[in-house]
Amino acid sequence: MTTHYPATIGVLIKNLSKLPGIGEKTAERLSIYMLQAPLKEMENLAESILDVKEKVRLCSVCFGLSDGEVCKICNNPGRDQNVICLVEQPADLVAIEKSGAFKGLYHVLHGVLSPMEGIGPEHIRIKELEARILEGRINEVVIATGTNVEGEATACYMAELLGKYSIKIMRIASGVPIGGDLKYVDQVTLRKAMECRHAF
Amino acid sequence: MTTHYPATIGVLIKNLSKLPGIGEKTAERLSIYMLQAPLKEMENLAESILDVKEKVRLCSVCFGLSDGEVCKICNNPGRDQNVICLVEQPADLVAIEKSGAFKGLYHVLHGVLSPMEGIGPEHIRIKELEARILEGRINEVVIATGTNVEGEATACYMAELLGKYSIKIMRIASGVPIGGDLKYVDQVTLRKAMECRHAF
Repeated sequence: MTTHYPATIGVLIKNLSKLPGIGEKTAERLSIYMLQAPLKEMENLAESILDVKEKVRLCSVCFGLSDGEVCKICNNPGRDQNVICLVEQPADLVAIEKSGAFKGLYHVLHGVLSPMEGIGPEHIRIKELEARILEGRINEVVIATGTNVEGEATACYMAELLGKYSIKIMRIASGVPIGGDLKYVDQVTLRKAMECRHAF
Repeated sequence: MTTHYPATIGVLIKNLSKLPGIGEKTAERLSIYMLQAPLKEMENLAESILDVKEKVRLCSVCFGLSDGEVCKICNNPGRDQNVICLVEQPADLVAIEKSGAFKGLYHVLHGVLSPMEGIGPEHIRIKELEARILEGRINEVVIATGTNVEGEATACYMAELLGKYSIKIMRIASGVPIGGDLKYVDQVTLRKAMECRHAF
């Protein structure tokens, strides 16, 4: 399909098609747009792609994404320095930030325990979390790993492991999603919602 | 939304969102992918974006897209040098090339006549087409402008203008699309298909 274009455009189409969710048709459309877009706009785009590769790294404290040695959240004295929310991936951290429901610090595990795939406690950032707890300021950890089998297993493991420290160990609630119609909610979630029912 | 990311990622999300058909959600997903993709792959992508801006220009003969002074099609001695297919835009040329149904040369007008928008014959590449015809090798022009009002008007204008040269002036056929169900075809197309009926 790319052979009907000059080679330079063919290369761009091929490179764009490698991106997730971008098929050859979309890549073609994007290439034609890029060809006609202002030069400055495309220079900015190319530069920002390279910038992300060069500058973004993991925060040395929480292992979230950061432009510098320590991320904006860890550096923010306005955040509650006594609570850590434990998540699997940087994207989970962003999702919670968007909700605006949490004002403490984070810790990103960068994975979940998965014996099937040979991922044990030593492969994810558990030691680093314990080191933070040992510093003595943390008095609560909210475990916000996923609610699938591996996320739950990791949550259980973490709850047991952290039991030896005198801190509160919490788990985010599971239940019926807000705005959902009960008849479309799966049975496992409904059972969970019923188990965790609370006074009105 | 981008404020929950390090600034570098925020800039990339903003730049990606400017592309057509890429919303902020998709831009976010692409940015995270780019962050984790191999450095070489992203360098290639950035380079190919800049390459397209730098190297692609219009063929000096047909005004199609080209890597060099003259495009691959104009440079190909295997193409029928006596027939020119007249199209509105480079994308139309590519569409016809993909069909494999045409083995001659092209001429890209880069627009259609549109009195409403102040686009007259002097604003599109008509003079350049006449210059090519005056060279004497062309004996047929196939007008393949669109079948909307402006495309048809441009086709009529071109047919009349080129009437003074002793060459065949043709128009691509209109009718029922192949694979279509008659009941879903609009009335204008059906009327055209009926008018242009031919012996079986």
